[in-house]
Amino acid sequence: MVKTMSWQGDRLILLDQRKLPGQVIQLECVDFQSVAEAIKTMKVRGAPAIGAAAAFGMVLGARQFSGDSEKEFRAHMHRVAEALLATRPTAVNLFWAVERMKRCVTARRGEPVTAIVKALEEEAREIFREDLELNRNISRQGNKLIPDQATILTHCNAGSLATAGYGTALGVIRAAREAGKQVAVYAGETRPLLQGARLTAWELMEDNIPVTLITDNMAGYVMQLGKIDLVIVGADRIAANGDVANKIGTYSLAVLAKEHGIPFYVAAPYSTIDMTLADGKEIIIEERDHEEVRSIAGVATAPANVPVFNPAFDVTPARLVTAIITDKGIVTPPYRQGLRKITGGE
Amino acid sequence: MVKTMSWQGDRLILLDQRKLPGQVIQLECVDFQSVAEAIKTMKVRGAPAIGAAAAFGMVLGARQFSGDSEKEFRAHMHRVAEALLATRPTAVNLFWAVERMKRCVTARRGEPVTAIVKALEEEAREIFREDLELNRNISRQGNKLIPDQATILTHCNAGSLATAGYGTALGVIRAAREAGKQVAVYAGETRPLLQGARLTAWELMEDNIPVTLITDNMAGYVMQLGKIDLVIVGADRIAANGDVANKIGTYSLAVLAKEHGIPFYVAAPYSTIDMTLADGKEIIIEERDHEEVRSIAGVATAPANVPVFNPAFDVTPARLVTAIITDKGIVTPPYRQGLRKITGGE
Repeated sequence: MVKTMSWQGDRLILLDQRKLPGQVIQLECVDFQSVAEAIKTMKVRGAPAIGAAAAFGMVLGARQFSGDSEKEFRAHMHRVAEALLATRPTAVNLFWAVERMKRCVTARRGEPVTAIVKALEEEAREIFREDLELNRNISRQGNKLIPDQATILTHCNAGSLATAGYGTALGVIRAAREAGKQVAVYAGETRPLLQGARLTAWELMEDNIPVTLITDNMAGYVMQLGKIDLVIVGADRIAANGDVANKIGTYSLAVLAKEHGIPFYVAAPYSTIDMTLADGKEIIIEERDHEEVRSIAGVATAPANVPVFNPAFDVTPARLVTAIITDKGIVTPPYRQGLRKITGGE
Repeated sequence: MVKTMSWQGDRLILLDQRKLPGQVIQLECVDFQSVAEAIKTMKVRGAPAIGAAAAFGMVLGARQFSGDSEKEFRAHMHRVAEALLATRPTAVNLFWAVERMKRCVTARRGEPVTAIVKALEEEAREIFREDLELNRNISRQGNKLIPDQATILTHCNAGSLATAGYGTALGVIRAAREAGKQVAVYAGETRPLLQGARLTAWELMEDNIPVTLITDNMAGYVMQLGKIDLVIVGADRIAANGDVANKIGTYSLAVLAKEHGIPFYVAAPYSTIDMTLADGKEIIIEERDHEEVRSIAGVATAPANVPVFNPAFDVTPARLVTAIITDKGIVTPPYRQGLRKITGGE
């Protein structure tokens, strides 16, 4: 399995996910600017992977500092953090990881800059290691919900490519398979950037898990035909009441699942849960470049100047979510209570 | 406005809709085989346009006959009809038009072949003329349902390109605009072949009707945001109970419209209604080439060998359809009764 990212001590190697599966290209990021650019242009994507990449971006930023004034270093790190946070507004894991790295700086007030840089590197490695473990835990939890012989619809890519490894939604499917269950997957292609077609289909084929690719507008018909037993997706941010922001199209799938009486599961680590937001209405939805909709893989597919709406995410209301599968257990309605419990909040 | 097709007395000129809007290419069909090929490969598409093209294909087939035995001519025309009917299984207008042309042959039993060929040409011209008039009538009827300031979601292309001209679903929108109403349209791009992005967006821009292009998976979110007042689509076949076969993705939109309390209208000529089918379960759904889903405009978008499901249509149950707008009036539930009335059946 090709790695989403690997830390080399002085640079972060990222797999360029915009080029997959046609080309397997490794990007070498030696400064925080190139990490920010990779996040912004979705060369690295998926909420947990963005978090880990940003953490390593903080390390690269720290290494770029020349001087030994701790005060100047802290001001510099503030600018590095701002640059990384400005890349994508919806995935909370980005904020979570950068905040954690900032706390690491604050906690070492008075220490030499070199020691702080060393600590930051350890913290980023730890975030990466933890994510891998979180995914394993999510997957173990989620496996309980997957019946043998299940056919599962998923959207976008919540796989090893979206995380430090193994995956959230696809991690659950992998765990079911490893537990000896015969599972099959329908993958929605996920326009505009086709993460389902390019990444999920590719990951599952690599793992020999049966996958059938459909265009996003086929989901309702496939459910109507009785082909789908459950839906499982990842998440970019989960509000305190259980509303889920995830890749555009997720909300439509949740409505369709409800219409057909099909369980709709969300798999995500605790770092995706944002208890500061009362509900999904408070989640900022990123709107992306209109060219993404007017073209596919660089090929124009619409009139050059046609107006476009291109929200990257949507919000699925908690009432449509059967359960949220986290590393700390499966949360079912009422979510406000269940999510508070696992996040240790109030 | 560029014409979908025009009959030149000895050949049928078709606008190659696979190339739009990037290239405006006219195809010259001088034999029935090239018409059949154009229908099969969707160079001409849209249920009413397929019907009219097939009628002219029958004329070209008749003109290809050399000899003067009426019996041989009838056998030849049977083969021509079979070839045209074998192109696409779902659009009933194809069957309707070819049957009508066959009846024209049968009705002239005993007449010289040259006279029958002449009659066939007149019949095809009449089918084309009628379709234009049907569209005008549908549009006039449908206009009554469109409030001023309405924002309308449509899918695929049920416009002038899908018909002899003016359009069914887009015809209704044109009529509303001509009646002085301020209307705006959201067009779903309609994967895999992107008729919404390529054809509907283009047609509406040509007519200066405001259009916003979205990917198909954004429809639910756009409705959730309160942007859509009604949905209007065309149809490829309507069963006696009001179940509607239309471009894949239509069913998902109907479910989403219901969830949001948004009216869902279908616009189609009487020739789309198939009273021989009790319900939608009897409609044959065409499955098309898997490469349509694995690529876009020849560019690979998924692993080369990924399994694919590619139904070209789906069936929307009558219970999700607010009204069917026909040339003979607006039909509302119960459909069995209303459709019987306008088709003059039993």
